[in-house]
Amino acid sequence: MAADMEIVSVGNELLIGKVINTNAQWLARRATSLGLVVKRITVVRDDVEETAEVIQGTLTRKPKIVLTTGGLGPTFDDKTLESIGYALERKLEVNQEALQMVRQKYKDYSAKKGTQDSAELTKARVKMAIMPQNARPIHNPVGTAPAVEMDLGETVLIALPGVPAEMEAIFEESVVPKLKEVSNGAAFFERGLYVDNMMESVLAPLIDQVMRSNPRVYIKSHPKGAENAPHLEIHFSTTGSDKEEAAEGLSKAASQLSELVVRSGGRVVPNKQAAE
Amino acid sequence: MAADMEIVSVGNELLIGKVINTNAQWLARRATSLGLVVKRITVVRDDVEETAEVIQGTLTRKPKIVLTTGGLGPTFDDKTLESIGYALERKLEVNQEALQMVRQKYKDYSAKKGTQDSAELTKARVKMAIMPQNARPIHNPVGTAPAVEMDLGETVLIALPGVPAEMEAIFEESVVPKLKEVSNGAAFFERGLYVDNMMESVLAPLIDQVMRSNPRVYIKSHPKGAENAPHLEIHFSTTGSDKEEAAEGLSKAASQLSELVVRSGGRVVPNKQAAE
Repeated sequence: MAADMEIVSVGNELLIGKVINTNAQWLARRATSLGLVVKRITVVRDDVEETAEVIQGTLTRKPKIVLTTGGLGPTFDDKTLESIGYALERKLEVNQEALQMVRQKYKDYSAKKGTQDSAELTKARVKMAIMPQNARPIHNPVGTAPAVEMDLGETVLIALPGVPAEMEAIFEESVVPKLKEVSNGAAFFERGLYVDNMMESVLAPLIDQVMRSNPRVYIKSHPKGAENAPHLEIHFSTTGSDKEEAAEGLSKAASQLSELVVRSGGRVVPNKQAAE
Repeated sequence: MAADMEIVSVGNELLIGKVINTNAQWLARRATSLGLVVKRITVVRDDVEETAEVIQGTLTRKPKIVLTTGGLGPTFDDKTLESIGYALERKLEVNQEALQMVRQKYKDYSAKKGTQDSAELTKARVKMAIMPQNARPIHNPVGTAPAVEMDLGETVLIALPGVPAEMEAIFEESVVPKLKEVSNGAAFFERGLYVDNMMESVLAPLIDQVMRSNPRVYIKSHPKGAENAPHLEIHFSTTGSDKEEAAEGLSKAASQLSELVVRSGGRVVPNKQAAE
């Protein structure tokens, strides 16, 4: 059975449309390729009660993994760990292992810069080591704030920073092994093609027919032109643990659909960008 | 009081990371500029029960507006209207006004193309006119599937298509007047600047200080460099109905912060991209 995952993105900048949510897309793509099924992405403001409500909601659905991004830094509106503590009714405390990570970062920065910046552990810096009880800090190879991992019964909750370079580095170093363990050898496979000269409303019943005879393959059409000037991207995907079987399944479905399209007067164009 | 809004994006392609959610960003930015407060964005799969659960969740929070995108087309996995019907326990029916809109589109397409495409109202085409009871179809000036509007007590729910050009055109033509009515003359104002040569952990208490003396201005720092090679984007924002008062408030907060930054050895650089 596939392992479910949810993503929670914390940050007002996403909700005023100032920033596009590249982090969620990146995480969704990487996690999907590792065999997880991302069921939901929720974007919430920098607000403790609202973020806590979202975290509680994700936990009621019992996904194997919840990843949060954003809100781990030193400013007043970095509230993700406080929100998680509130959601779980766990006290916040200075995590000594995290504090040591933060202390070491500022020592290193200070040493590199000479005397200009102090390595003093100010309140804003200690803040990055204040975590809910029983949280495990995760090493941040790029930035300062440690990420955080918590085992919550059926779910592992991992809080990642919002700066993309930090989020990606921690994901590759520390999250990928966990996802591989959870997905148990499953992987995601996809291929694509384009259909021209056929309206989506004409293609729809052909997709139905091919999906009925290929129940493990999911087929989705993405209109790239207009209904009356159609250019349709067709995406075939499946999740499984046997690469050859998956590739064969996708190939069979793609051939069947192509044949039906051509027979109905449409034109099939290979999609060179999609994995084949 | 500011009017709250939520966005629900429906589509597996967003949850496998195949597509980035430009629709949600576009809607969030436009709605914010019209004075609404976007509280949450939820991305959910093409699944009736899951989408219905998300819709029900948004309604319990009583936002003035819920906008959904995606899932209005002719294929099997276009399930948003079915999901809304399920969430509201309303029967689905062929909406005669919507059917007339769809019929007219295919007549026009067929007339333009000559005899090649039939204007026949196939099952896949009629599907785009099947809506929950008491839904109002909204004219789609670009594509085929009508959008849908429903009054649900304190909330207006509007379902928009996922194709960006269609979504944007319907928004500008039919949703903007509604949002202006709901936001009651409020608008969003912002300005920005950059701070160099100062770590975010050093800037954090300065932001706290300026926000305390400017309670209506929200200030957020976005690290664009690294903690030890800092380049920080500072974003000032406020929502109000008096443009001059808002501009003055932002300007005062920006001056105060700039002064504190320079006094602490940082460098302030104007952000020419941000609205000033």
